[in-house]
Amino acid sequence: MHALKVTRAEDFPEWYQAIVREADLAELSPTRGCMIIKPWGYGIWERIQDEMDRRIKASGCENYYFPMMIPLSFIAKEAEHVEGFAKEMAVVTHHRLKAIDGVLKPDPEAELAEPLILRPTSETIIGDAFSRWVKSYRDLPLKLNQWANIVRWEMRTRMFLRTAEFLWQEGHTAHADEAGAVEETMRALEMYRSFAEEVLALPVIAGEKPEHERFPGAVSTFSIEAMMQDGKALQAGTSHNLGTHFAEAQNIRYQDSGGGISLAHTTSWGVSTRLIGGVIMTHGDDDGLRTPPAVAPHQVVIVPMVRGKPEDAQLIAYCDVLAQETASRQCFGSRVRVHVDKKDSRPADKRWDWVRRGAPIICEIGPRDMAADKVTFFRRDRLRVDGRPSAATLDQAEFVLGLDRLLPEIQNALFAEAKHRMESNIRGGFAAFSDLEDYFGEDQDSQFKGWARVHWSRPSGKALDEVEARLKALKLTIRNAPLQQPNTFGKCVFSGAPAVEEILVARAY
Amino acid sequence: MHALKVTRAEDFPEWYQAIVREADLAELSPTRGCMIIKPWGYGIWERIQDEMDRRIKASGCENYYFPMMIPLSFIAKEAEHVEGFAKEMAVVTHHRLKAIDGVLKPDPEAELAEPLILRPTSETIIGDAFSRWVKSYRDLPLKLNQWANIVRWEMRTRMFLRTAEFLWQEGHTAHADEAGAVEETMRALEMYRSFAEEVLALPVIAGEKPEHERFPGAVSTFSIEAMMQDGKALQAGTSHNLGTHFAEAQNIRYQDSGGGISLAHTTSWGVSTRLIGGVIMTHGDDDGLRTPPAVAPHQVVIVPMVRGKPEDAQLIAYCDVLAQETASRQCFGSRVRVHVDKKDSRPADKRWDWVRRGAPIICEIGPRDMAADKVTFFRRDRLRVDGRPSAATLDQAEFVLGLDRLLPEIQNALFAEAKHRMESNIRGGFAAFSDLEDYFGEDQDSQFKGWARVHWSRPSGKALDEVEARLKALKLTIRNAPLQQPNTFGKCVFSGAPAVEEILVARAY
Repeated sequence: MHALKVTRAEDFPEWYQAIVREADLAELSPTRGCMIIKPWGYGIWERIQDEMDRRIKASGCENYYFPMMIPLSFIAKEAEHVEGFAKEMAVVTHHRLKAIDGVLKPDPEAELAEPLILRPTSETIIGDAFSRWVKSYRDLPLKLNQWANIVRWEMRTRMFLRTAEFLWQEGHTAHADEAGAVEETMRALEMYRSFAEEVLALPVIAGEKPEHERFPGAVSTFSIEAMMQDGKALQAGTSHNLGTHFAEAQNIRYQDSGGGISLAHTTSWGVSTRLIGGVIMTHGDDDGLRTPPAVAPHQVVIVPMVRGKPEDAQLIAYCDVLAQETASRQCFGSRVRVHVDKKDSRPADKRWDWVRRGAPIICEIGPRDMAADKVTFFRRDRLRVDGRPSAATLDQAEFVLGLDRLLPEIQNALFAEAKHRMESNIRGGFAAFSDLEDYFGEDQDSQFKGWARVHWSRPSGKALDEVEARLKALKLTIRNAPLQQPNTFGKCVFSGAPAVEEILVARAY
Repeated sequence: MHALKVTRAEDFPEWYQAIVREADLAELSPTRGCMIIKPWGYGIWERIQDEMDRRIKASGCENYYFPMMIPLSFIAKEAEHVEGFAKEMAVVTHHRLKAIDGVLKPDPEAELAEPLILRPTSETIIGDAFSRWVKSYRDLPLKLNQWANIVRWEMRTRMFLRTAEFLWQEGHTAHADEAGAVEETMRALEMYRSFAEEVLALPVIAGEKPEHERFPGAVSTFSIEAMMQDGKALQAGTSHNLGTHFAEAQNIRYQDSGGGISLAHTTSWGVSTRLIGGVIMTHGDDDGLRTPPAVAPHQVVIVPMVRGKPEDAQLIAYCDVLAQETASRQCFGSRVRVHVDKKDSRPADKRWDWVRRGAPIICEIGPRDMAADKVTFFRRDRLRVDGRPSAATLDQAEFVLGLDRLLPEIQNALFAEAKHRMESNIRGGFAAFSDLEDYFGEDQDSQFKGWARVHWSRPSGKALDEVEARLKALKLTIRNAPLQQPNTFGKCVFSGAPAVEEILVARAY
């Protein structure tokens, strides 16, 4: 018996929907393809924002806010310069409603002269500003970031992973030369890698995307890829070196120190609420989410085991004092976040609510704890022993003083478990494409499959299209070429030619 | 000579545009009616968010995120129930672009079955969620908040004060009964009053809006009103008791403890980036902004007076140490925010940049300061003595140790100055409407006019329309009926009937 009605083994996609719902992270909204993010989910996002924002600012970026609505002409200009530009975008065409025959409709007399596009990303409108702001080499590097909502018209949506509207941060920078842009691209990638691993306890592989998976118009695109518990890969962050392509389209030029005019080199990089989907599919179990303490909205939840008796008031008072003591401790650079659940419902129901949400430490305080100055608590990361929830009891002072060790211990345990899973499920030794077919071709949906690490000759153009098609037949995609590469390479599994690179191949979200 | 090209006395609206530009707070964007918020402006907003969010959470609200796009049917339902519902809204009608004869256009085949409205406020979509979430009296009160971007199609825009897109927070709550909703409405109002006064140093008058200025569908609307330096009022925050009107339209019903079904009572309340406009027009002077220390992105700015000589490195090192010492101090509940300006430009230009932006304390550190372990600094709130910028010099240790007294002193000085101005410019003693005409009717645009405090009989319906029209002829509006009322009332200035209330009448933004 587990707290969720469906287990990962039974039906992973169903389990994902269940956990999003049962952990009260989000729900579908009446607006097609959009979700309502609820406090536990939004609280995780707030922690992500705080931690990421600090890192972004420490790198010398400043936060701006640009309009969400972008004139169509900006998009059209981009589309001219960039092949493969996606056209699924929400288009604003009217600025007024009018009751026509008693029905409220867009007012035909209030049609916009130029339609506006809801930002699918902001390179165009930020690039336009760069072209005005960048005059001289003294203005470079120009590094900015924006926290914003984004709209992309997705036909098949899945909460946190793919929705018509989502929240993200997008960094945009302009540099005097290629070296500056390359350095920034790699800095952002490393920021994402360390953030994912340290803050979200998500082990990831950082690497470069193959040519056909680049952001349209980019010289190179890098990603961090995380392994979900069904073996699929989740792209959890991207960083693009845009070279001078966007600067050309948008006329971002500067006077260099010698007086000549040069094109700037730009970059962009982003992570989104998709990260929360990654946290769920990495750390969730059949009882619900296990929220990494560094991003848990409440790190310690205290449930007073009230019984509807007069002593309850005293018990709640004891819990309040425990909460105060707990909040006076520091962990991960800020006060321990603690919550006393005083809601009007059964204590046992509350325990399971917090188990499903994945509060890292759940305390159940009864009269006996109070009498003995003790704290009984569950560690959510290892809730069950022999299948049954298993609590520990400590003296109050010992519990409180130990929190700054216990919370990082939980964080590290989640990371170690996920890292072990990822590392044991990246498989090498594929000599030819037929080996990939043997491994991924049979029982596609019933057996767990991790990632394949294969050597290839980095084909381009039509040869790459062919590779892509062959992989697609196995439902596989190329994730990235990891930054860490071996010293020597064997033969390309696709062509048999001498390989130049090792790439990760996987099923993916 | 002042740092801005135009003074308040010469042309207040022009001065406002100049300060927004010269303090680098924001600029107009290529999207009509929308602005780009730049780091100094956005940094103020980040401080507002932090401080307000803490207060909102302390009141028991939790943060959610709802879709920005709202189905037209939700708006239509609201429009049926609510008179005076504004219809200037951005309407999304298509979800794809297509190149037609070489021109990128909304794809006629991708027209939405139901248009989507960009949220002008979120009562409709949040109320719909309330109707699903509120089942029993145990679910009440339900208190939530959202930080979001908002779109209202404004024809005449002014940066921060009125733009097509702006940023805000909107609180939405549901309660079991009227008392709960009234209490929440007043709590939010008081939160806004104390926030404005304590954090933004904006003195305000809290009070109730007259009937015709209520939020459409509200039982009562309350506001805080701040006096700008041109005497006009700025509505700086609103709180609405929506009674059961929205619950009826949206079917928000709950089972009470006796088993009966009751309608919930709802409230909503919000403040926006408009507050930054209020800060500018309250604290700005002819040299630029004077940013209240509690919300200044940098509270202390250090300008090393480098001369392009080898000693510069040592000077910058001294400034870095000073910054470290400064950042180790606490003020307003967090570390002092300090910035060393190492930009490649003339030190004198940097000083004036920070004067225009209104950094509360601007240090100019030269070789002599370094040699004597001193700090030379300007207080931005009283920059000039006899018309000339006037600096003070202190021992480094004294300067650093005194910061937790000096920053609040600057904050308080700004508040005291604004409060004095507001209080000396609210004028009573208007016995009849002709007195108002005498005061406000002549030299309307050349002379400073504050607010009038007048007694009225609180007319309704057509009588109120008439009052509104008479005031409008003087370019006046009713701001609110202050919470603090006298014990007795004279005659209504509009009708001569016995008055029941005192109201504030003013020109307004």
